[in-house]
Amino acid sequence: MPKKNAFYAQSGGVTAVINASACGVIETARKNKSVIGKVYAGRDGIIGALTEDMIDTSKESARAIAALRYTPGGAFGSCRYKLKGLEEDKDQYARLIEVFEAHDIGYFFYNGGGDSMDTAHKVSQIGKKMGYPIVCVGVPKTVDNDLPLTDVCPGFGSVAKYVAVSTMEAALDVQSMARTSTKVFVLEVMGRHAGWIAGAAGLAGEIPGDAPHIILFPEVPFDKKAFLKKVKDSVEKYDYCVIVVSEGAQYGDGRFLAESDTKDSFGHAQLGGAAQVVTQMVKEKWDYKCHYAIADYLQRSARHIASKVDVDQAYAVGKSAVELAVRGNNAVMPVIVRHSDKPYRWGVGVVDLKRVANKEKMMPKTYFTKDGFGISAAGRRYLAPLIKGEDYPHYRNGLPRYVKLKNVAVTKKLDTKFEI
Amino acid sequence: MPKKNAFYAQSGGVTAVINASACGVIETARKNKSVIGKVYAGRDGIIGALTEDMIDTSKESARAIAALRYTPGGAFGSCRYKLKGLEEDKDQYARLIEVFEAHDIGYFFYNGGGDSMDTAHKVSQIGKKMGYPIVCVGVPKTVDNDLPLTDVCPGFGSVAKYVAVSTMEAALDVQSMARTSTKVFVLEVMGRHAGWIAGAAGLAGEIPGDAPHIILFPEVPFDKKAFLKKVKDSVEKYDYCVIVVSEGAQYGDGRFLAESDTKDSFGHAQLGGAAQVVTQMVKEKWDYKCHYAIADYLQRSARHIASKVDVDQAYAVGKSAVELAVRGNNAVMPVIVRHSDKPYRWGVGVVDLKRVANKEKMMPKTYFTKDGFGISAAGRRYLAPLIKGEDYPHYRNGLPRYVKLKNVAVTKKLDTKFEI
Repeated sequence: MPKKNAFYAQSGGVTAVINASACGVIETARKNKSVIGKVYAGRDGIIGALTEDMIDTSKESARAIAALRYTPGGAFGSCRYKLKGLEEDKDQYARLIEVFEAHDIGYFFYNGGGDSMDTAHKVSQIGKKMGYPIVCVGVPKTVDNDLPLTDVCPGFGSVAKYVAVSTMEAALDVQSMARTSTKVFVLEVMGRHAGWIAGAAGLAGEIPGDAPHIILFPEVPFDKKAFLKKVKDSVEKYDYCVIVVSEGAQYGDGRFLAESDTKDSFGHAQLGGAAQVVTQMVKEKWDYKCHYAIADYLQRSARHIASKVDVDQAYAVGKSAVELAVRGNNAVMPVIVRHSDKPYRWGVGVVDLKRVANKEKMMPKTYFTKDGFGISAAGRRYLAPLIKGEDYPHYRNGLPRYVKLKNVAVTKKLDTKFEI
Repeated sequence: MPKKNAFYAQSGGVTAVINASACGVIETARKNKSVIGKVYAGRDGIIGALTEDMIDTSKESARAIAALRYTPGGAFGSCRYKLKGLEEDKDQYARLIEVFEAHDIGYFFYNGGGDSMDTAHKVSQIGKKMGYPIVCVGVPKTVDNDLPLTDVCPGFGSVAKYVAVSTMEAALDVQSMARTSTKVFVLEVMGRHAGWIAGAAGLAGEIPGDAPHIILFPEVPFDKKAFLKKVKDSVEKYDYCVIVVSEGAQYGDGRFLAESDTKDSFGHAQLGGAAQVVTQMVKEKWDYKCHYAIADYLQRSARHIASKVDVDQAYAVGKSAVELAVRGNNAVMPVIVRHSDKPYRWGVGVVDLKRVANKEKMMPKTYFTKDGFGISAAGRRYLAPLIKGEDYPHYRNGLPRYVKLKNVAVTKKLDTKFEI
């Protein structure tokens, strides 16, 4: 294959380590200059390709690119924008080809989750179906850990570490004050459909009685009576109760906690997420003093407490994506393969994109405790290695030195516009 | 003064570094064995003294005590319990004397905030007023930074660092997604009366346009119109807006945001804290996609991102308290004295307890920007040094190795009970 430029884009919710994947892609492309020319990044993801708004990463120093490994967020901008099917919206694909052709782009790296792998798969077909040859490789990313076929998804290990550490720390706080102050602490974490993030909180507890005492997973139908009883048992036995709740915790009939049980006496639905609802339930039933925290974006941007394993894996899939592309592999995605739990050993494998797209991986039943309020030994065995190791950013004046790229635009070559 | 035992207690809300002060007290007492016998810690603060439920810290290894420096929460338990005046409730003081006498206690170290320094001051009077000689020294602690006479209060620097780093990280996340997703992010932080913690978030922004774009302080009367306009300006200029709000943000008439503007159409007050109220306001007025996080206890227990300056100062006031006591200083409290901003140099001074008790230090007007939505250069000059330096705990298997003390009870000598 003749030397071509590459297009790289970040897609969907960003993570603490998606830039580590970008770093892997760009550094590895720079090592393969005989095959890959420049790496152009989409400004705000795929939108940057459609609008011919691309960033010339060759304008960044080696040092700036290396610093991406330590910088959270999406350095080139990301977006929530899903391409329709090739047949449904041929114009979009024609536009991509127009832009790719104008900029001599022969490689397409798409860094995202399930939806994004669907887009990547569609783009990988434009060679066969629309006559524009391109090598398209997906780079897995999502804090939710719900991508199939990979043992773990880069981005998850760091949010898992943040949640486990934060749960452990807040628990020490609550425990020391429980006699005369707060007895119940609720932490709401991300996870609309899958409970992986909430499950990671379980790593904070090592012996019976340790927090968290209760975890509420989207996969386990919420049983209010059993829940309230367990809160009381915990307070009576340990003086306090730490609860970690997925934003997607739900009843058996699929109603989210966050949408229910929050009517006032006139039957009006009240605002509030899962943490607030759970807190209100406990207050009403047991009259314990409660507090709640909502980690929201803090959890997925907390590069300061990233997992080293996660950072290494995020870099590795970026690097591997380029190596796969250089060898001419189209429509594939590198995955993390686990060789052993203890000691933890892993490597990088590869799967076809069409097998990944639009599938969600939930926590298996065997990862929950019998009562559904915690993680089993099997769940712990899976989760524990993913938070291993620290990989601190550099600091200056007490703050992390996160890199701000120059993000110089690639000169436009087209006089056509495209409305998104 | 003949050799006597010491009593140490933690009081009020705990912090990421209150145990570093305990470490300073205990290690320094151990170095002064000719004067101080054993250090007994109150289980759950002063309640432990009243109920004769004390912990013998001499049963802990030097290694365990050293590990307190890296462990958040209150290792001996804390409490919210304020002693009344000597005249109002003589029984409580008589009980303290009974317990102190039974255990040969001649030193009293009380580690807390404004209320606690009031208690410490009262206890310091029982020598003169009730004939039981005791040397009483306060050890300053509060995340709120509202103690007077000390340049800064141990506990604050670490929450300040947590808030500044978290704001910076979440801002990178929001900024990279703003084009197609969340445009406004709200972070609620502690500070019921004083805005120091919210102000620390301002350190995250270094040049115009950097987050946070808006800070809402309790000291600055909330102006809804000006606020909403500034949100819009920020979104139009920078594509996104990061807002940090004190839990105690309030209108000019003293109504907390958290208590107001959240009535449903029937006039019923709705639940929700400041972040939720602010988010709702922005949504209603501008229809931007918003997210909010509530840091709650995570911020004050986040030892993993503690400020080294803060840890050093927390240790220093513990050490100094013992040194003051050994020299016979009663009714005093060590304070942090600032010698210079840049380079930051500090030392430990001493003030009389009676000057500290029950006073709150708000942010001075000169620390706010003109529009009241940010910190001024003077505010930045004050705050910046306090978050300097990292002081990571040790990790094992990806989690901090926080120490769990044995907390062996001191054998009771009294057959009297005391109901609290």
